[in-house]
Amino acid sequence: MKVNGTHYRTVWMPERGIVRIIDQRRLPWAFEVINLKSVAEVAHAIRDMAVRGAGCIGATAGYGMALAAIEAQSEAQLVALAQSLIETRPTAVNLAWAVNRQLNVLRNQPLETWQSIAKREAEAIADEDAAACAQIGVQGLQLIRQIAAQKPGEVVNVLTHCNAGWLAFVDHGSATAPIYAAHDAGIQIHVWVDETRPRNQGARLTAWELAQHGVPHTVIADNTGGHLMQHGQVDLVITGADRVTRNGDVANKIGTYLKALAAKDNGVPFYVALPSSTFDWSITDGVKNIPIEQRGGEEVTWMEGTDANGAPHHVRVVPAASPVANYAFDVTPARLVTALITEKGVVPATEAALAGRF
Amino acid sequence: MKVNGTHYRTVWMPERGIVRIIDQRRLPWAFEVINLKSVAEVAHAIRDMAVRGAGCIGATAGYGMALAAIEAQSEAQLVALAQSLIETRPTAVNLAWAVNRQLNVLRNQPLETWQSIAKREAEAIADEDAAACAQIGVQGLQLIRQIAAQKPGEVVNVLTHCNAGWLAFVDHGSATAPIYAAHDAGIQIHVWVDETRPRNQGARLTAWELAQHGVPHTVIADNTGGHLMQHGQVDLVITGADRVTRNGDVANKIGTYLKALAAKDNGVPFYVALPSSTFDWSITDGVKNIPIEQRGGEEVTWMEGTDANGAPHHVRVVPAASPVANYAFDVTPARLVTALITEKGVVPATEAALAGRF
Repeated sequence: MKVNGTHYRTVWMPERGIVRIIDQRRLPWAFEVINLKSVAEVAHAIRDMAVRGAGCIGATAGYGMALAAIEAQSEAQLVALAQSLIETRPTAVNLAWAVNRQLNVLRNQPLETWQSIAKREAEAIADEDAAACAQIGVQGLQLIRQIAAQKPGEVVNVLTHCNAGWLAFVDHGSATAPIYAAHDAGIQIHVWVDETRPRNQGARLTAWELAQHGVPHTVIADNTGGHLMQHGQVDLVITGADRVTRNGDVANKIGTYLKALAAKDNGVPFYVALPSSTFDWSITDGVKNIPIEQRGGEEVTWMEGTDANGAPHHVRVVPAASPVANYAFDVTPARLVTALITEKGVVPATEAALAGRF
Repeated sequence: MKVNGTHYRTVWMPERGIVRIIDQRRLPWAFEVINLKSVAEVAHAIRDMAVRGAGCIGATAGYGMALAAIEAQSEAQLVALAQSLIETRPTAVNLAWAVNRQLNVLRNQPLETWQSIAKREAEAIADEDAAACAQIGVQGLQLIRQIAAQKPGEVVNVLTHCNAGWLAFVDHGSATAPIYAAHDAGIQIHVWVDETRPRNQGARLTAWELAQHGVPHTVIADNTGGHLMQHGQVDLVITGADRVTRNGDVANKIGTYLKALAAKDNGVPFYVALPSSTFDWSITDGVKNIPIEQRGGEEVTWMEGTDANGAPHHVRVVPAASPVANYAFDVTPARLVTALITEKGVVPATEAALAGRF
């Protein structure tokens, strides 16, 4: 999507031997594009979260393997470099998937062809991710058109949580894809952006994305969505997902469940947008069976912002004498989800509907 | 309650002509008790939120009138000083109530008796507030005892939102009174403290209070409560209230409604603790008829904390290009409230039950 009026992806390969990424650690305080010139630099960027989000990590790892294809002088070396990438974020399913996809196409090919094969495959991985998100946009746009048709001349208000935006993928994003599609189609749309404590991905990344692309939006504390829904100020909710079970339970950023409850209580449609690679067909009861990661307490205790001069600073926002807990995700039961917006269509969040479609 | 092992109230009169308060602007980074030596200093302290919370503001204004009784040389001067106090926070019902109560007892009394009358009345106002909160503790303790009896040897987990603690009153607090009572009675209790964005009263004040009094607690992002309730980690919720309607709808800090929805969805009892002065008998439909204050956006945009050296700093946590909205309260419909804990007993949140009791 657009940054300062120019179209960007989160990761790309401008020339042989160089992977270029948006350094998401600096956002929103600074927009910086950096060059990664070795597998080691790509691994460091992934580990240090210069890139984050399933689609974006997968694509970056795919490009990392294009550098590995230059560096490796044997299959053993290639496999070792692949392993170094996979180890950067062991739970990132897309990462291992992209790296193994590269290994599969390179194995048994002559070494002198690796570079061109791996570059082509990296671009295919990135293009497929962008295309899936674009299709989510096409599917979700129809839902927004229906709502817009019911209130001609009025603004359609969407609420979103966390960042399931283009920064988390290669382009378009999942939850944001229908929003960008609607905005670009000339529908008057406005987005309530949940701050998304403790890591503030909403205030830092989603708000920045939307501002750069020119989509009207307002940042709110995570506590606010229920009040807005009670007063008719939200027409639909769209969130992303980290994992969706075969019966449609949705694991997503902590707090998603609370917004789904408020949507249900106020008759507001609650949609979850995801590429179909996010389904975990092995799990049926999300609340019982999806393990919820507990992350470091410093994410709750400390907060990053900028001072009056725009310089980044960390401040402690919880007294030192008080312990904290940091559950990173929660599970929204399928009964609270109006439908899932996938690249293959809008599907009710039920086992039967999902089995029928996938 | 206790601070550094010593018992404190939020406001008191240690000697003639001096009102002493805990400066809540400095909490939790510093604990400072300051002297207010004139009505003007009391007015400034209230306006600048050195004291906050209905009970605490009311008691401070009562003591302010004890200073007015020293300064004023005529009833006209007394009324003018009273007016200067009322104007500091025009929507604070307890403030005007305390000031007018003082005017009523002083009017038509000889000027030379004002000092002693006003001091006695200020102490009565403070004592009554503390006694009402203590009674809320007694009432709420019975509820906690029942829960503790169902899980012998195990910790009782309470979740609370915002600060309805002793800092908001003269002593004990409303939502915290049952917690302190249970802790002091030897019940093993642990409190999940919602951070309470955007002003962070949970992380700043409730966490500090509980730590000082030695009550085990854990600070969590506001997004977390639903997940904890899904997994049996919350036995009951207790919040305070800013206003409760005749049918039991509860206006309280933004985000309270979301926690009440999660409690209902998971069969967790949701209690609201309040002195009966918080009822607004003129309103029946809280969602429709309680106006919700919108406060300045800087409370969302900027956040206060301390740097690595413990020095307070403000940082901007929302990009400058993004607008924000700051709704301060929401309304929890009575259907989500298990019962109201008042100084006169535990009452179901229904019009019939409330009419029967009050």
